[in-house]
Amino acid sequence: MRVHGADCLLLSVGSDLPYLTGYTAMPLERLTMLVVTEHDATLVVPELEAPRVAPGPFEIHPWRETEHPVEIVTRLAGRPTIAAIGDQTWSLFLVQLLSRMPETTFLPASTVMSELRIHKSEQEVANLRAAGAAVDRVLSRIPREVRFSSRTERAVSREVIDMTLEEGHQTAQFWIVASGPNAASPHHEPGDRVIEGGDVVIVDFGGKLNGYCSDVSRTFSVGEPSAKAVEVHAVVAESQAAGRAAATVGTPCEEVDQACRRVIEAAGYGQNFIHRTGHGIGMDGHEEPYLVEGNSRLLEPGMAFSIEPGIYLPGELGVRIEDICVAGESGLDVLNRADRSLVVVE
Amino acid sequence: MRVHGADCLLLSVGSDLPYLTGYTAMPLERLTMLVVTEHDATLVVPELEAPRVAPGPFEIHPWRETEHPVEIVTRLAGRPTIAAIGDQTWSLFLVQLLSRMPETTFLPASTVMSELRIHKSEQEVANLRAAGAAVDRVLSRIPREVRFSSRTERAVSREVIDMTLEEGHQTAQFWIVASGPNAASPHHEPGDRVIEGGDVVIVDFGGKLNGYCSDVSRTFSVGEPSAKAVEVHAVVAESQAAGRAAATVGTPCEEVDQACRRVIEAAGYGQNFIHRTGHGIGMDGHEEPYLVEGNSRLLEPGMAFSIEPGIYLPGELGVRIEDICVAGESGLDVLNRADRSLVVVE
Repeated sequence: MRVHGADCLLLSVGSDLPYLTGYTAMPLERLTMLVVTEHDATLVVPELEAPRVAPGPFEIHPWRETEHPVEIVTRLAGRPTIAAIGDQTWSLFLVQLLSRMPETTFLPASTVMSELRIHKSEQEVANLRAAGAAVDRVLSRIPREVRFSSRTERAVSREVIDMTLEEGHQTAQFWIVASGPNAASPHHEPGDRVIEGGDVVIVDFGGKLNGYCSDVSRTFSVGEPSAKAVEVHAVVAESQAAGRAAATVGTPCEEVDQACRRVIEAAGYGQNFIHRTGHGIGMDGHEEPYLVEGNSRLLEPGMAFSIEPGIYLPGELGVRIEDICVAGESGLDVLNRADRSLVVVE
Repeated sequence: MRVHGADCLLLSVGSDLPYLTGYTAMPLERLTMLVVTEHDATLVVPELEAPRVAPGPFEIHPWRETEHPVEIVTRLAGRPTIAAIGDQTWSLFLVQLLSRMPETTFLPASTVMSELRIHKSEQEVANLRAAGAAVDRVLSRIPREVRFSSRTERAVSREVIDMTLEEGHQTAQFWIVASGPNAASPHHEPGDRVIEGGDVVIVDFGGKLNGYCSDVSRTFSVGEPSAKAVEVHAVVAESQAAGRAAATVGTPCEEVDQACRRVIEAAGYGQNFIHRTGHGIGMDGHEEPYLVEGNSRLLEPGMAFSIEPGIYLPGELGVRIEDICVAGESGLDVLNRADRSLVVVE
């Protein structure tokens, strides 16, 4: 906070709060907010949720249904010159704070918090490794246990969710199953499309295990793949390997992106790689560092991120391969080890 | 917008956007925002998510990973005097808008939107009815299919989630299973506690079916209930019935709360009813109108809300009974019909 001149930190929903305190705010219209000043830390929490809070290095200030929590926060905050507010805090509350604290300049809390969170401790890496191993087990089960042909994307995604929970995750957080032409939509939501023989299917899923996120993508072929699918998959696999090779300590984030992009551009698919190469991961599924053009920050030991190039051909197919990796002095620690080839499923 | 003097509406995550357009923003660090001015409506969306957007009465403005979406929004917004911003929009984005639009006063979008959303159309009531009927089917299956005794809360909650999806919900959104002393925590998160004979268990769950929410609570007894459990349950049941009787068109919201509270206070448990009586429901699980002291708004036809009094005895037990109801000229339309008694389970 001192580095950024913030004299007050206000955290609500999102991972900054559990990162500091172990407590996760419920994403509801009843405000939960940790107010940190130079001298005090107070968790303002709805009275009915106070029994959920384990004691920690903060005071607990429950508020009753007839009280106004933003007034309580304003009182506790004092008259800060600069307040850092949690990135995911609802604007409903920031708007109310703005009118009560007209002299205060607000910064996103990530300005303060991301320098802490971007460097993973050994325990945090262990948590990410456990989450990565769990989704790898799901990936190894898919060809043996999941039938794709003649079933909807939604039905397949339900099985992926179930296996993710069976393999130890507390929650599944996303479950992309994008088949045939739908695979050209990187964030496709699994729907009623019935998967057919010859389809290429992107499976991209993850959740939380002990508070840390998994996120992995593999691309499957339902029956024998077309020559085009084989070709595109080989380009993406080469691109993803180039990204892993480039991600050494001291390399700018954008150079990892460039390393992946060069392979895809050389193969003539540059226009079809329509997203950045990767994102940091930890307690949040997406956090710093982002592997994207324009991010010149150097990779440091303990930074954890995805490497996930893809090629998307509208109306035709899509391919993506994604691993979570941790930068380290002794080389890249790749947390996902599941088969990266174009595995054939039924 | 005109009523509230807003010359710009900015909607991101949350239900206001799908209410108006059918499109739901992904809750990620990549900004999705509908910008509505007097003349135009434009959906600013990450390029990789643009294939998800069905055509609607708005322009689509995809942004690439190397562009700055807040600058695009600022350009489209012009120089509004008053901008209404979606309640759940991440503060990360509002902070950036504040520095680019220093002359603009921001209001919560609910100021503009809730008057639309508080009155449910026939189709919306039909959607809420279908969601309510689905969770009623789950409740009727619980005594027949779910074993509580010697199992963890988490295991029971997993079964409730599965049944909610089996009965037609697209998503389960919460699944409170609070047993024994844990039931005294209204928002208890199901955990490792092993349920025992003699426990009272609150089951409070819901999700979304066709975009509309369910939310229902019943309290079960594992084996024969204690005299105390029977007594407390009877008080809550009488309170909940009093709330349903009071919720006529033209009644202030706070009077429904008072009707429930009077019964509980008369029985000597006033200090143990630690939350409001209810909340509105629709595309959001909690929305206006809130049945809480201080809300003098009168109930109108088509308003949908929960009635859910509870009694919480710390270290001992808790009881809650909840139905979703719709106010109407011909009487209260109670969407949940599942047995409200203290049903005995194994």
